[in-house]
Amino acid sequence: MKFRLEATDRLSKARAGEITTDHGVIKTPIFMPVGTAGSVKAVHQRELKEDIKAQIILGNTYHLYLRPGLNTLEQAGGLHRFNGWDRPILTDSGGYQVYSLTEVRKIKEEGVTFRSHIDGSKHLFTPEGVMDIQRTIGADIMMAFDECTPYPCEYSYARKSMEMTHRWLKRCCDRFDSTEPKYGYSQTLFPIVQGSVYKDLRTKSAEVIASFGREGNAIGGLSVGEPAEEMYAMTELVCGILPGDRPRYLMGVGTPANILENIALGVDMFDCVMPTRNARNGMLFTRNGIINIRNEKWKNDFSAIDPESDLFVDQQYTKAYLRHLVNAKEILGAQIASIHNLHFYLWLVTEAREKIMTGEFYEWKNKMTKQLSQRL
Amino acid sequence: MKFRLEATDRLSKARAGEITTDHGVIKTPIFMPVGTAGSVKAVHQRELKEDIKAQIILGNTYHLYLRPGLNTLEQAGGLHRFNGWDRPILTDSGGYQVYSLTEVRKIKEEGVTFRSHIDGSKHLFTPEGVMDIQRTIGADIMMAFDECTPYPCEYSYARKSMEMTHRWLKRCCDRFDSTEPKYGYSQTLFPIVQGSVYKDLRTKSAEVIASFGREGNAIGGLSVGEPAEEMYAMTELVCGILPGDRPRYLMGVGTPANILENIALGVDMFDCVMPTRNARNGMLFTRNGIINIRNEKWKNDFSAIDPESDLFVDQQYTKAYLRHLVNAKEILGAQIASIHNLHFYLWLVTEAREKIMTGEFYEWKNKMTKQLSQRL
Repeated sequence: MKFRLEATDRLSKARAGEITTDHGVIKTPIFMPVGTAGSVKAVHQRELKEDIKAQIILGNTYHLYLRPGLNTLEQAGGLHRFNGWDRPILTDSGGYQVYSLTEVRKIKEEGVTFRSHIDGSKHLFTPEGVMDIQRTIGADIMMAFDECTPYPCEYSYARKSMEMTHRWLKRCCDRFDSTEPKYGYSQTLFPIVQGSVYKDLRTKSAEVIASFGREGNAIGGLSVGEPAEEMYAMTELVCGILPGDRPRYLMGVGTPANILENIALGVDMFDCVMPTRNARNGMLFTRNGIINIRNEKWKNDFSAIDPESDLFVDQQYTKAYLRHLVNAKEILGAQIASIHNLHFYLWLVTEAREKIMTGEFYEWKNKMTKQLSQRL
Repeated sequence: MKFRLEATDRLSKARAGEITTDHGVIKTPIFMPVGTAGSVKAVHQRELKEDIKAQIILGNTYHLYLRPGLNTLEQAGGLHRFNGWDRPILTDSGGYQVYSLTEVRKIKEEGVTFRSHIDGSKHLFTPEGVMDIQRTIGADIMMAFDECTPYPCEYSYARKSMEMTHRWLKRCCDRFDSTEPKYGYSQTLFPIVQGSVYKDLRTKSAEVIASFGREGNAIGGLSVGEPAEEMYAMTELVCGILPGDRPRYLMGVGTPANILENIALGVDMFDCVMPTRNARNGMLFTRNGIINIRNEKWKNDFSAIDPESDLFVDQQYTKAYLRHLVNAKEILGAQIASIHNLHFYLWLVTEAREKIMTGEFYEWKNKMTKQLSQRL
């Protein structure tokens, strides 16, 4: 993996860059649609490519490990071959789902034991095991196994957890560096900064993570319920420590405004289920604000979903039709809203990139963040 | 509406024809995907057009009347404008859903009172009312209001019901002929033959229906649980009586083999929820037989869904991937299987048409019906 910095904003820490992987180039800042179990929900792979113009998608190690399982993924020749997505893929470490989806779990130094949310079967994730799993999935970018602390989190727990995450990182790196990719293309490993919302812990964690000298670095444990200001304070602090010549990935963030603010603080990569999950409930993100398509006010609004957009669903379907589909729980409603939101998120980061290149980012960002948060 | 007969098979009653409506031409025999509430479930309109190559879709009067409702449909300028499908649309009369979906209903000479399956509200469908509703929906082809008898059905009930359906037809025609289309394009009305599985009733009904001299005619009350042989016997009888210079529409049929057998008996138009409903449960129809994609045997089958097909889902996704999606209840699984099945149904009727034109239909049909029913 290579990272080339192309431009930095004068008035903020925003950067435009380019990541090169064996599955192609990613222009940053970038948003990565979440393809939980090997599918970005309600969206075809050709729509991701041709309509949404996604450059990289995310897969969840926890879900893929349970279903279809490693045997099938390995026999397929990795996730790219399994799901037909031939551009870059990033996988998380499975940690987040283990903490949020499973009921019975035990975190020990060795790793985490948990029960599957599907069939209750018992499993153990260790730093080494999770590296092996991601080798088998075949992600271009693999994530270190960490503990994502909840919010709020006691200082002492946050410190102990962070220290274990650092020890786990060493084990992840050792395993990663002593194993080879399985399918003939390179993989890289990103470590994850933790430390909850405590400045000294975040500082310490960022220093430790930076000292590993990996090809890219991630910030985890944010967007878990803390106020946006706390998130921005932590991102700013951490971005000041993580090396500037490597991509920075802020995990699980967020709203369109969150993304622009964090780009301004020096983040290059984002992922979030919000555009697809909220789409299925009828929430649309647009450049003029947020639409709840279930509202009565759209009932007889026969204007295009987004007249300013060139996306086929925005042009070919009306607000009234989409409202009807979502209210009637028609699958097509989820399809339309998901494509719309993902296309919008990709448009937003592409636009941010152009503004960084032309030096107009900061003013544009300040105007947009107000606009994006309005309720229409 | 115009119908032109282009060819008739030497060895069977199969016909190739062309229906011309104000929204375009339909080459027969044809299969019409069912777009229940204004959407063919899990399929985009552009996929219907460009991938499935649907020529006409069906809308359900019962569903559309309840949601989005007539006010919205009229303000939109009819269903074509509402859902963005600019090719022909046929609507059923709502009768079938009233009998199958609603619990409290009362059939009287005036019409049928029923309670909505959505909110329990009380409604009355009369022959006149159903004509007005379909005028407002704006279907190119409207269906007469009938009673669809269940199977099995007592002779005396079938006779009385059929006679009422005939009286209702008179009222439908009177209302249709004394009203105008609302949106500037023509609409036509098809009456429906009933009579359960009783030869004398079917004969009588076909004669009465033919005597109305409408532009096309339908056969209802079949594919409701009777053995296929009884269905074919009734179709054969009725097709012998309905005029040959008008299209014949067999409602709610059926499996791929059912469709070929009924084409051989002189039917021109079909609709059925089977390709989409069964798709959502993982059943795929192919030219070589039926696949239950949930079966263990497809778990590690990384061959294309249908290597012989040029459809993008058949080429770009594997059986193992589709199995995973359906088992994991991913929406994309329903999308892929629905497009596949509809594309296959349209391929089948297009192929039948070509075989009729080249005089090879009968032999091909006999070979295909065996093949299509195999379990793979």
